[in-house]
Amino acid sequence: MQAPPEEEVIRRLEELGRRVADQILRGEAPYLEVPVRTLANTIWDKKRKMLLLGSKTARREFFDVGESKRFMQTILMLKLILEARREGVHPTIRDLYYRGKHTLTDKSGKNLGENTWDDQRESNAVIQDIEVTTGLLREHMGLMHDAKGRIVGNMSIRSKGQVIELSRLGSGAYAIPSNVDSLEILDVKADYVLVVEKGAIFEQLNEDEFWRKNNCILITGKGQPDRSTRRMVRRLWEEFDLPVYVLTDGDSYGFYIYSVYKSGSITLSYESERLATPEARFLGVSVTDIEKYKIPKNFIIKATERDIKRAKELLNYPWFKESKRWMEELNLFIEKGQKVEIEALSGHGFRFLSNTYIPEKISKGEWIA
Amino acid sequence: MQAPPEEEVIRRLEELGRRVADQILRGEAPYLEVPVRTLANTIWDKKRKMLLLGSKTARREFFDVGESKRFMQTILMLKLILEARREGVHPTIRDLYYRGKHTLTDKSGKNLGENTWDDQRESNAVIQDIEVTTGLLREHMGLMHDAKGRIVGNMSIRSKGQVIELSRLGSGAYAIPSNVDSLEILDVKADYVLVVEKGAIFEQLNEDEFWRKNNCILITGKGQPDRSTRRMVRRLWEEFDLPVYVLTDGDSYGFYIYSVYKSGSITLSYESERLATPEARFLGVSVTDIEKYKIPKNFIIKATERDIKRAKELLNYPWFKESKRWMEELNLFIEKGQKVEIEALSGHGFRFLSNTYIPEKISKGEWIA
Repeated sequence: MQAPPEEEVIRRLEELGRRVADQILRGEAPYLEVPVRTLANTIWDKKRKMLLLGSKTARREFFDVGESKRFMQTILMLKLILEARREGVHPTIRDLYYRGKHTLTDKSGKNLGENTWDDQRESNAVIQDIEVTTGLLREHMGLMHDAKGRIVGNMSIRSKGQVIELSRLGSGAYAIPSNVDSLEILDVKADYVLVVEKGAIFEQLNEDEFWRKNNCILITGKGQPDRSTRRMVRRLWEEFDLPVYVLTDGDSYGFYIYSVYKSGSITLSYESERLATPEARFLGVSVTDIEKYKIPKNFIIKATERDIKRAKELLNYPWFKESKRWMEELNLFIEKGQKVEIEALSGHGFRFLSNTYIPEKISKGEWIA
Repeated sequence: MQAPPEEEVIRRLEELGRRVADQILRGEAPYLEVPVRTLANTIWDKKRKMLLLGSKTARREFFDVGESKRFMQTILMLKLILEARREGVHPTIRDLYYRGKHTLTDKSGKNLGENTWDDQRESNAVIQDIEVTTGLLREHMGLMHDAKGRIVGNMSIRSKGQVIELSRLGSGAYAIPSNVDSLEILDVKADYVLVVEKGAIFEQLNEDEFWRKNNCILITGKGQPDRSTRRMVRRLWEEFDLPVYVLTDGDSYGFYIYSVYKSGSITLSYESERLATPEARFLGVSVTDIEKYKIPKNFIIKATERDIKRAKELLNYPWFKESKRWMEELNLFIEKGQKVEIEALSGHGFRFLSNTYIPEKISKGEWIA
């Protein structure tokens, strides 16, 4: 899927503003109709294995004392984003916060002692409102974030008219930009996508050209993945029908990272439809691997209370709840309180991860979904 | 400067081991002669504006109860690194920690209840010892880290036989690998290097092709820079004689990040000779910018106690101490307790940073060194 063209983005943003302008011109009390982003309006779609936003919307009325500030903030943000789009610039959400922050004055210029917003959480919230109302992702609106992802493999993309071969980057990789939908994926010659949690493991597998030897696409979001890494993984799965394997540490933090790639966050369900990869498979390190791969006692780390608490939370996530294997894994983790890092596999030799663990698990289908 | 060839790396590592083997064969008590990495053996080289390791070395004796463990750890690590080099693999320092961690046994196989090392700090310390003893950086020894840097601009590099044009990467960028010395920089057509602290600002300037319009190399280490980003900046300055400008937030954390690019850390002075860029210039945001660019009061953040404490520490860094301008800036920061983010400049319009602030400061020479 490509991003909507610039004119379409501007058209949708203008339409939102025009609706309010029309209300005013007709002499009506202006309001916005915004989809509700609460947990109560979040639906677990069993078939698509995704959290989706329900159909509930709320009216944000200008003439309602409790809502007028949020109404005005939304209009202010809409103006700023449109301004950026018309100028063809690419601000960050922090830029928008500053660009819009000012102290309100009355008609005579008297300071009213109130700011448009005091905290970036306020300006971010109205960006999200505009996203769900227009059906545009913030990336489509040209907003930038601190993109972390790296990708390499037998594939080529086109961006700004340039063709980039992701198999010809030497020891380096392609730094994934904020707006992945601005990239055209031309060609993918790979059997699967391997997502690695840790940046250093990515470096290692890339330097040893694991992706070339195993004909896969190698990608990392460096820990908790950002939006554009998730979007890239999603596109490779959706458009090229590639199986996606996720490799993390064997602890609840690693399981959670897998969960973010697979289904996203419960509180930002409206993003899942674009960013989640519901069929992503967990390759490891799993709790059962500790015994299976004879991880020495020396290498096992005691789980903290926080780890256990997090694992208990994961038990309630719908995408884990429906998986018998995940219930077993998580309960075993809680029961044993043992965690293990990917690097612990190096105890079996430097090449164990790339020559044995990853290819064997994939060929034998020993992943968890 | 290129990395030493693989054979040279292996030769130097073997030589270190051979010295010890020869001692044993001659019937002598084995020892290692290791440069001392303490602050007391750190010298501020006024002329080169760098912290350098002094000439003091220490003998690490096998037959000294207080040193025998560290001696054995060093030999064990040397063996592991050589094993990796001979196999042609690229482990991380965490891999080496696990690969070498085991419980000691006596000749009969009885568990002695002591591990080779218990903590990665122990295995890292002997890696540093091997670095200073052999004069090789860990990257030269093929060790990988979680590389964070991104770079883009009118330059081309060769890596693994492939030529990569860093001006033809579309909306993306080149993800800098762990071992920058393995890259051959073929060609640089740029007037200066712009280092930006924040990843999101890099994304923005890249999407708007600031580097093309201003003929510069754009690079980010995403906050506190990693070794390979610092090495890349250093090489562009050293080999291509390019002025280097650093753009950070206007607070002691930002000043510190500039300081790391410029001179490195006081406790890892032996790295400075390869990673530091002593002539790096601080472009902003400076404390005096607050007044000069009329940053609205609304946008100014109160410095925390930690900010002030950090600024006071910076006052004592030799590379700041010798700069009258830096003394003024730091004292003003401590006195006013005001900090300001780069994004605050967006208050003057989305294009203010790229069209006014950066080019004006550079053309008028309004940087601090």
